[in-house]
Amino acid sequence: NGLVLVKNPHLDLMEEDVLYHLDLGTKTHNLPAMFGDIKFVCVGGSPNRMRAFAQFMQRELGLAAAGEDVADICAGSDRYAMYRAGPVLSISHGMGIPSISIMLHELIKLLHHAKCRDVTIIRIGTSGGLGIEAGSVVITDTAVDSSFQPRFEQVVLGDVVVRSTELDKDLAEELLACSRDIPDFPTLIGHTMCTYDFYEGQGRLDGALCSFSSEKKLEYLRRAYEAGVRNIEMESSAFAALCRLCGLKGESCHLHLL
Amino acid sequence: NGLVLVKNPHLDLMEEDVLYHLDLGTKTHNLPAMFGDIKFVCVGGSPNRMRAFAQFMQRELGLAAAGEDVADICAGSDRYAMYRAGPVLSISHGMGIPSISIMLHELIKLLHHAKCRDVTIIRIGTSGGLGIEAGSVVITDTAVDSSFQPRFEQVVLGDVVVRSTELDKDLAEELLACSRDIPDFPTLIGHTMCTYDFYEGQGRLDGALCSFSSEKKLEYLRRAYEAGVRNIEMESSAFAALCRLCGLKGESCHLHLL
Repeated sequence: NGLVLVKNPHLDLMEEDVLYHLDLGTKTHNLPAMFGDIKFVCVGGSPNRMRAFAQFMQRELGLAAAGEDVADICAGSDRYAMYRAGPVLSISHGMGIPSISIMLHELIKLLHHAKCRDVTIIRIGTSGGLGIEAGSVVITDTAVDSSFQPRFEQVVLGDVVVRSTELDKDLAEELLACSRDIPDFPTLIGHTMCTYDFYEGQGRLDGALCSFSSEKKLEYLRRAYEAGVRNIEMESSAFAALCRLCGLKGESCHLHLL
Repeated sequence: NGLVLVKNPHLDLMEEDVLYHLDLGTKTHNLPAMFGDIKFVCVGGSPNRMRAFAQFMQRELGLAAAGEDVADICAGSDRYAMYRAGPVLSISHGMGIPSISIMLHELIKLLHHAKCRDVTIIRIGTSGGLGIEAGSVVITDTAVDSSFQPRFEQVVLGDVVVRSTELDKDLAEELLACSRDIPDFPTLIGHTMCTYDFYEGQGRLDGALCSFSSEKKLEYLRRAYEAGVRNIEMESSAFAALCRLCGLKGESCHLHLL
């Protein structure tokens, strides 16, 4: 029926659900009235960028004049920022798997409480590209870990649970088709490697710590490329795993800046 | 000699070091002039809270009138916020190990480039307490993982490297002694469990996903308590490991709110 699934039998027994990090709740806010018509959710790391995206969407949808401001729905919390433009919600998630996970748990409950239907969620982030042109966009088919495996390891009460990190193939193709309508918009579908660390974890030579040579770095990145990895970032595996489990049609698109 | 150590032979060969997520750099900023006299760095998740802390420190040190504003040194980046009050730097790090790790790599390089000496770094955050009174402060002796082990597993080029997560015992005792001078300030020293996930990872029953019973949750938390864990949060193990490796005297203090 297109509803967002929460997989938690305890939730029905709770009198109130406080979405603490979003500064929203089932008793303090009328979530169906506020969010019931949401069809698209776009998420990215930086709050300023997600605000600019909401303003862009407002103009694209003819909902506001250029430069008109959008209000931060989560202004009472400085953990995340949330803006809306018609049926599109734009939310920041900070950096890394733990940070995006907290936001996604609360967002999924929000969409569930609001009785939203047929929601598509797209991560629009930046990443480091592997063997691709600067300015390219990578649409993720599968998020892989630092061993290039399509899995997300989640620790639940001290035990490791392994989850799948495949994203929605139809949505990936649809987004790729959109990119073809725009001139000079290099876009490809590929695997995205998701790491827990930006410096040592992604083979950077300029962190406070670095114990490997430039050659070892290149050898690792070459192996990643051969395994199908086209870019590296820090959120896609948790994003893919949570969307999949909760019936959200999800995709992850990353701009390779440098 | 009290200098902050970077353990990266590549850094000396670099013409410029851009501390990208802090919006600072060795060519664009005179880091020794800006930061050379810093002696204390306090870090915490929330940017608003770290701003309030800098304002509090300004008043405590007699540097500014009440209510006077402090400027965000990293205003050009919305990844982190940084304020200073005399010799005290106050920086936000977002939520989770990946987010604090990026900040710490760049902070450590900043203190190194600025030639700071004898710097003490303290994480002042919130956490969930285990078997302790609400309002208590836990000073961490050792950060442990979700199996209650004193280790931080860092993936470097796909291989797991295990690092120690002990914090500075003398500093912990010194902070505990300070707390004793203040009435009604329940403070204790204990282990802090650091998880990658807030909901399933910390045994919460109110996430979008929950596959365990209330009994299993309590059993896990009881085992954690028996292993010496007095609170749970999401950054201390990376904080402890990085401070230790780079010669920073570090401590982690957490307020148990509820």
